[in-house]
Amino acid sequence: MATEFELIAGFAERFVTPDSVRVGIGDDGAVVEPGAFDVVSMDTMVEEVHFRRRFSSAEDVGWKLTASNLSDIGAMGAVPGPLFVSMALASPPDEEWVNGFCAGVQQAVDQLTANPQQVTVVGGDMTSTRGPVVVTMTILGSLKGTQPVLRSTASSGETIVVSSLPGCSAAGLEVLRAGREQEEPLEKLVQAHLRPRPPLVLGRELALQSMPSAMIDTSDGLIQDLSHILEASSVGATIDLSGLEIPAPLLVAEQEGLGSVRDWILGGGEDYCLVMTVPTGHVDALQRYATRHGQRPIIIGTTCDARQGVEVIGPAGEMVDEFSAGFEHFETL
Amino acid sequence: MATEFELIAGFAERFVTPDSVRVGIGDDGAVVEPGAFDVVSMDTMVEEVHFRRRFSSAEDVGWKLTASNLSDIGAMGAVPGPLFVSMALASPPDEEWVNGFCAGVQQAVDQLTANPQQVTVVGGDMTSTRGPVVVTMTILGSLKGTQPVLRSTASSGETIVVSSLPGCSAAGLEVLRAGREQEEPLEKLVQAHLRPRPPLVLGRELALQSMPSAMIDTSDGLIQDLSHILEASSVGATIDLSGLEIPAPLLVAEQEGLGSVRDWILGGGEDYCLVMTVPTGHVDALQRYATRHGQRPIIIGTTCDARQGVEVIGPAGEMVDEFSAGFEHFETL
Repeated sequence: MATEFELIAGFAERFVTPDSVRVGIGDDGAVVEPGAFDVVSMDTMVEEVHFRRRFSSAEDVGWKLTASNLSDIGAMGAVPGPLFVSMALASPPDEEWVNGFCAGVQQAVDQLTANPQQVTVVGGDMTSTRGPVVVTMTILGSLKGTQPVLRSTASSGETIVVSSLPGCSAAGLEVLRAGREQEEPLEKLVQAHLRPRPPLVLGRELALQSMPSAMIDTSDGLIQDLSHILEASSVGATIDLSGLEIPAPLLVAEQEGLGSVRDWILGGGEDYCLVMTVPTGHVDALQRYATRHGQRPIIIGTTCDARQGVEVIGPAGEMVDEFSAGFEHFETL
Repeated sequence: MATEFELIAGFAERFVTPDSVRVGIGDDGAVVEPGAFDVVSMDTMVEEVHFRRRFSSAEDVGWKLTASNLSDIGAMGAVPGPLFVSMALASPPDEEWVNGFCAGVQQAVDQLTANPQQVTVVGGDMTSTRGPVVVTMTILGSLKGTQPVLRSTASSGETIVVSSLPGCSAAGLEVLRAGREQEEPLEKLVQAHLRPRPPLVLGRELALQSMPSAMIDTSDGLIQDLSHILEASSVGATIDLSGLEIPAPLLVAEQEGLGSVRDWILGGGEDYCLVMTVPTGHVDALQRYATRHGQRPIIIGTTCDARQGVEVIGPAGEMVDEFSAGFEHFETL
């Protein structure tokens, strides 16, 4: 049986301490180069809440926790740096699961970041639990001199843009629940659920060019996350999803009776797209920029005076009065 | 029922964002002043492993998690900064427990740190779980230009010093298990267990004066934690605990049949004292310095060549061949 200290030694062997970190795994704390990092985010995933062993491999869990943390850094307009991982695991610890988790972290870093060698695990904690696995990651990031893109800085009369249409992750979970993950094109939704790909580089580049006035990533659902911007910025919004091109796998999933495209798009969480408000004068430039980089951001509405509230027109052109308001952790159990 | 977002809003109301933090609770990540922090540590506490509801109030848990994180920063020789808290709680969340936890965090910060207004919660995560409560804290710290005091920099022939004798916390847990927490002097052990007081300011001051060559805090037990220094520094040690003045409550607890003083001192965890190696020429100065500040550090041995291994003489002058090797998370369940 691996001990706590052997598991930590395994992390230290696997993850090479980057130049920006003077002291990595193996002391009371990590020491980073002074001035190297100025953004910090923290995310937790809990077994049976954020992942289920029957659907998610250890690699999937490592990938997703990393992706969600990277996404937060990207949504601030920053560049990701070192990671800290705390794991509460059943005893005796499943070493294979821990190794798989680490491999998933590495895969996410390799595939999602521009400088993977700067984004390694340099500290954390390892403990036992009698309950479900709980994994927490803290990530450092660097704005490298640019201003952070906040939630509170949207204005009335701006265009609301998403980096891509959310909803595939929530639909993917339904595909898994239905046991249909082997079927094309439903398998694409499962990939979106298990291996989300936040547009990290896009977030950073847009921040560098000061294009969005406010930005957030979709972790709890489009309406929920957008509402954080609207509330923090004291603006209203008109969202119009009619006439948008719906991804084919979502349409198939709806046709197969797995759920509602509208609910997935408006309320489905864990897609880790970017939602941003963009001053009208910047919209064309943003679209040209994104297209050059193979992205297809989508205009979904405009901000307005707070007194006008929030109006939502659904994908079929219908007024949406009630909708799944996104993932609220304490309503799900 | 409080929602996730209401609970987070409660944190934001309670904890005032310090000057060193530009963006606190309420965005995708916190933004700190560039160059303000260069040390990071992370600790997790799990219900039924690190605390039991029947023994620890929510305030006790908040205190202890904060103390353990502060202790790591102190053991690096750094000054503590902002905190990040992730909580996995049963649903519906027990708002009173969360409020108590926050109060305990604040009490620990107020009583243990020199500048409490710099050590507030500025971010984190809040989620549900179907299992035991899991709370994780990440803390930032600042070396403010001094060198970190590592585990790997002890040399042969140095004096091994503890800031105070560990063991009271482990004995306190036995007092609680025996239901004798109301009795004097056993109650003092319970306080040591529930409300540990790491000598933060001492750690920082000693680091400023470059007195210890290596330093660690005792979280898993004296021998376990000291062995991290010995292994990282490739040295051996002779530990001699004979003739030391044993705290009276520990002696009473042993007389009452609650356990063994020797095991508590050598193997008991969670006291958060400092263990350090000190070059011989610095020992007198260290003791004078500590005495002036009301501390009574204790010499417990010397380092030696690694080939001589580790020799331990117990409190009663006996050679210790086997002893409780400290808290290893995955051996406890």
